Amino acid sequence: MTLNVAIAGASGYAGGEILRLLLNHPAYISGDLTIGALTGGSNAGQSLGDLMPHLPQLRDRRLVDTNKDTLAGHDVVFLGLPHGFSAEIAQQLGPDTIVIDCAADFRLKNKADWEKFYGSEHAGTWAYGIPEMPGHREQIKNTNRVAVPGCFPTGATLAALPAVAKQLVEPTLNVVSITGVSGAGKKASVAMLGAETMGNAKAYNTAGKHRHTPEITQNLAEVTDKQVSVSFTPVLAPMPRGILTTITAPLISDEDPHAIYAEFYKDEPFVHVLPVGEQPQTKNVVGSNSVHIQVEANPDAGVLLVTSAIDNLTKGTAGAAVQCMNLTVGYHETAGLPLTGLAP
Amino acid sequence: MTLNVAIAGASGYAGGEILRLLLNHPAYISGDLTIGALTGGSNAGQSLGDLMPHLPQLRDRRLVDTNKDTLAGHDVVFLGLPHGFSAEIAQQLGPDTIVIDCAADFRLKNKADWEKFYGSEHAGTWAYGIPEMPGHREQIKNTNRVAVPGCFPTGATLAALPAVAKQLVEPTLNVVSITGVSGAGKKASVAMLGAETMGNAKAYNTAGKHRHTPEITQNLAEVTDKQVSVSFTPVLAPMPRGILTTITAPLISDEDPHAIYAEFYKDEPFVHVLPVGEQPQTKNVVGSNSVHIQVEANPDAGVLLVTSAIDNLTKGTAGAAVQCMNLTVGYHETAGLPLTGLAP
Amino acid sequence: MTLNVAIAGASGYAGGEILRLLLNHPAYISGDLTIGALTGGSNAGQSLGDLMPHLPQLRDRRLVDTNKDTLAGHDVVFLGLPHGFSAEIAQQLGPDTIVIDCAADFRLKNKADWEKFYGSEHAGTWAYGIPEMPGHREQIKNTNRVAVPGCFPTGATLAALPAVAKQLVEPTLNVVSITGVSGAGKKASVAMLGAETMGNAKAYNTAGKHRHTPEITQNLAEVTDKQVSVSFTPVLAPMPRGILTTITAPLISDEDPHAIYAEFYKDEPFVHVLPVGEQPQTKNVVGSNSVHIQVEANPDAGVLLVTSAIDNLTKGTAGAAVQCMNLTVGYHETAGLPLTGLAP
Amino acid sequence: MTLNVAIAGASGYAGGEILRLLLNHPAYISGDLTIGALTGGSNAGQSLGDLMPHLPQLRDRRLVDTNKDTLAGHDVVFLGLPHGFSAEIAQQLGPDTIVIDCAADFRLKNKADWEKFYGSEHAGTWAYGIPEMPGHREQIKNTNRVAVPGCFPTGATLAALPAVAKQLVEPTLNVVSITGVSGAGKKASVAMLGAETMGNAKAYNTAGKHRHTPEITQNLAEVTDKQVSVSFTPVLAPMPRGILTTITAPLISDEDPHAIYAEFYKDEPFVHVLPVGEQPQTKNVVGSNSVHIQVEANPDAGVLLVTSAIDNLTKGTAGAAVQCMNLTVGYHETAGLPLTGLAP
Repeated sequence: MTLNVAIAGASGYAGGEILRLLLNHPAYISGDLTIGALTGGSNAGQSLGDLMPHLPQLRDRRLVDTNKDTLAGHDVVFLGLPHGFSAEIAQQLGPDTIVIDCAADFRLKNKADWEKFYGSEHAGTWAYGIPEMPGHREQIKNTNRVAVPGCFPTGATLAALPAVAKQLVEPTLNVVSITGVSGAGKKASVAMLGAETMGNAKAYNTAGKHRHTPEITQNLAEVTDKQVSVSFTPVLAPMPRGILTTITAPLISDEDPHAIYAEFYKDEPFVHVLPVGEQPQTKNVVGSNSVHIQVEANPDAGVLLVTSAIDNLTKGTAGAAVQCMNLTVGYHETAGLPLTGLAP
Repeated sequence: MTLNVAIAGASGYAGGEILRLLLNHPAYISGDLTIGALTGGSNAGQSLGDLMPHLPQLRDRRLVDTNKDTLAGHDVVFLGLPHGFSAEIAQQLGPDTIVIDCAADFRLKNKADWEKFYGSEHAGTWAYGIPEMPGHREQIKNTNRVAVPGCFPTGATLAALPAVAKQLVEPTLNVVSITGVSGAGKKASVAMLGAETMGNAKAYNTAGKHRHTPEITQNLAEVTDKQVSVSFTPVLAPMPRGILTTITAPLISDEDPHAIYAEFYKDEPFVHVLPVGEQPQTKNVVGSNSVHIQVEANPDAGVLLVTSAIDNLTKGTAGAAVQCMNLTVGYHETAGLPLTGLAP
Repeated sequence: MTLNVAIAGASGYAGGEILRLLLNHPAYISGDLTIGALTGGSNAGQSLGDLMPHLPQLRDRRLVDTNKDTLAGHDVVFLGLPHGFSAEIAQQLGPDTIVIDCAADFRLKNKADWEKFYGSEHAGTWAYGIPEMPGHREQIKNTNRVAVPGCFPTGATLAALPAVAKQLVEPTLNVVSITGVSGAGKKASVAMLGAETMGNAKAYNTAGKHRHTPEITQNLAEVTDKQVSVSFTPVLAPMPRGILTTITAPLISDEDPHAIYAEFYKDEPFVHVLPVGEQPQTKNVVGSNSVHIQVEANPDAGVLLVTSAIDNLTKGTAGAAVQCMNLTVGYHETAGLPLTGLAP
Repeated sequence: MTLNVAIAGASGYAGGEILRLLLNHPAYISGDLTIGALTGGSNAGQSLGDLMPHLPQLRDRRLVDTNKDTLAGHDVVFLGLPHGFSAEIAQQLGPDTIVIDCAADFRLKNKADWEKFYGSEHAGTWAYGIPEMPGHREQIKNTNRVAVPGCFPTGATLAALPAVAKQLVEPTLNVVSITGVSGAGKKASVAMLGAETMGNAKAYNTAGKHRHTPEITQNLAEVTDKQVSVSFTPVLAPMPRGILTTITAPLISDEDPHAIYAEFYKDEPFVHVLPVGEQPQTKNVVGSNSVHIQVEANPDAGVLLVTSAIDNLTKGTAGAAVQCMNLTVGYHETAGLPLTGLAP
């Protein structure tokens, strides 16, 4: 049976990356998956050739409006919409439709966290789409509603998870994440112009203000009984894609952290704990669903240092979305998801 | 029968890109193609994990020396070596081995051109690996020796070919090609440091000195009886990959050049003549084997303007190499070669 | 007597760069020049600290509206406004005020050119601010109305001028200019986002459509009786500042072009004809008012190749504006204008 | 009396930046300071025009060997040499010569720290060139031997100093510094090629291995009796210049940190505590000697966050060197040192 897939918000970076991955997905190539409705907001009516010229196969497709009618009749709907609107659309989709939501609406369990960080009513909580977190793979397989994680929480959670779960550190984390500029989305703004961002580094949404903070905390609280505390500082760097996350936390174990990390992730297809001495580089994961991780103790400073690299648009968003679709639909988890980054 | 493939010079950018493409090739995924010897020069003995961390599947493979013994026993040998050494190795490989050479040694037909531009003895001439040139697809299918074209000649030839063949212009071409820095290869040098190249544009090997000049001339001479003349100016720009080529030539026809280009390339899977008004962007082809082309008349200046975008490492080198392997071996020509670029 | 200087449009890139230069100008440092009104459009009321944090000396200054009242009472008014509005404001300023206009309104002599390229009524023609063009330095000294040239015309004119004036070439020029992204100004747009422009090269306003084309033609027509023809192709490259221009034209002389260029510019403080064999690099002129030029014959292709590098915001706009102010006011022409680029 | 200044290691990035600053220094412009010997290593004999084409005023100067004879007879000698060799040369210079050393040799007080991090014999300790540290300005004025600080210690020390001195935090610091690629110097290497560094972020010399760690610790220990502990993680980002430092430390005060920082630096000409809500950006300080700082409490995470931006080559190296020369010689401290960054 052919799987018919719609993408709501197909003209944004998340939507475009989902399309890039689907076009190279074996189910699409074999004809078992078809790309149905592609929807937009103010772009509705425009051709994908004008909006996404890197996807020549879809050049003649036109965006339609985003509503329950255009999205009806699909087996899978990916939502690449702003939060709020995403929840509104999600709630109009039939219960049998598989919905993979790239927005934040259904990620948080705690209503108060949602209200504090997003300032609106909490829409609910769906299965949270990091299959590499304990128990999550099964949850994702057994639902048709998946909340795709934020890009920073993906990089930070996968970096910190073994250290917190295996009690290598106190769960008092200092997280600094250096991100490429596509993380800000495809919206016109002076601050994100090339002339402003090239050759420039700056922190933003600092000191607890970034909305991904409670998501990181929530994820790590799943593997410890201690109180989790996260200082999160995102930094914008002059590259199109990629997130490099550095995490330090008070070291409370003298076990070999590298061996523990290697063991923790040994069956994960996308998580690569690098050989001792080799640091993750965003370039090595760009365009791929891979996560590169390094861990080392710094006894002089009394901390553990963990670093991770992901592509914010692939493993950080669209790759995770396709990985969750694969699990939910019953495809092989890795289908259509490159392990190889585009370097140089 | 399994195809056993070796890559000589696997630690360079061409070699790494061939590996990236092969790892995602359907024949590799199905087990019909195996990656055999990977050779290096001074890197022999090192693991691919250290040299090419973006290819996690090959992390534990080690480079061996480049010689006829390590390369023996393979059905296909890709050569990603410096010219001169490439010819030397090529001539030691058995006549039944399919050899796909990314160096310049066997590209030029004219001995005098070779001697003038390369200052050494001419090694010979092989089938020239641009399948989109008239007659070349058949030549490549029927040989086991292919000379992969230079990156600039690929972008310039495909841009100029219809205009010259269909007599839209006098074949007196002004070619300016803006290239990413990976074109200079993976060799340590002060001039190619990030600190020197970021934020910088400069022309180099100007005024007839670049070795790709006679290759462009040779290609266009295949489709015209007139004397071909090429002024070629390469410009280095601060991006890792990509070549944007601009060509002007005296306009001698009042036919619609866009219609002629669209017709000329209508059956080519990798060449996309963009809709009127849309200019090629290197970003839209990066990581892909696609060629984006635009053409328009400038009657005020009396010239035709053609622009093209390719990825210098993919369609400009490794993608063309795999495309030629596909043709020679009998695979589908497009197998394993992405049409979609990595944007943004 | 103190010179009181206003900048209209102080929140744009041209205005900011004029301020950067004035803050380091010896007349400002000695107190002989004061920075008066700084005007904005929608930014009026905001502090310069928020809009131009790279100018800490002016942190507490606030933008006022752009109109004849706020600009009244200044000895010099720099206009960094959109064309059309710039002419409107210019015409309201008193005849004794020195007006240095960075917009296009008063650059073109030919009314028909203006109407064709700008689609509005021609405002007039002022002294054209390239002091290095024959006769222009004197004109600028003797006027209080200067039209600052466009950034591309500056790079192209200075590169082509000796070749055309000294009849080294037929004035049938092929001009390809690679520009940094600040040339597009400080306006929010999706196409100019960092995520769209980093790692990308593309041509735009091609085939005679760019408004700087008639300006280049007009400049060169001043030094030849032949019909000047210009094919102009601007290319956007991923760097914040800088224009690298390449020009070819049919070679009609066997004189040594390098010697002719060196002689032509030997008394110009800002124009450096580089030693034979050294190509201009934008990085070497960024932040400076210098122009680096190289010239060489390509007899095989029958063309002369000239390349030039400027900073589009300095010599290409604000530096030229200050250079013209210096001449008009009677300061030393080079006062406050760096010769040294910011490399690396 | 004219001050005669030599630069040893004039072909490196530090040497080139010292020259750029001196050429725009009022003492040079007025003729009170002359640029004497410029020395190199393997570059000796080459012209500065070939090595530093961004400094056209010095185009015809040639590098001489670096030794006590070429450096003799100068009032001031700047050393831009590798550590070890720098100490060797320094010790051969006469006691009356003012020596400003950009290498690490004389920065550390603690012999054991030197031996642990540099693996060689400790050469001694000179006045440490951060005039903004309590007591240092006077020390620098009264010596003729100054050790210019490392680039990371400059950004980190100025960011952390008020917090530690005024007991806003426990001196247990987590420092993550994002640096441009010029910090690696002008040495050929594959890892620092443009093709490797563009579009890439990676940590390096992690977990206590970076040699600037003890320097940061030493500086902060000057203003507290508590034990200082520093976890330092440098991250390479794709920009030519600039360091953005983020620091967190356990918050132990409920005083307003912004007011304390503003007061602490209120008389410092180069240190700008930005308005509340505005984050430092490297772009706003590039090419300048300015330091931009922001500080804010994050009570949820129990930490203070401080961020700072400097240009690694200016305030981080050559600007500090000139600032120290100004103090030692008796010039105005800010002479020749731009406050304005080169934005965009």
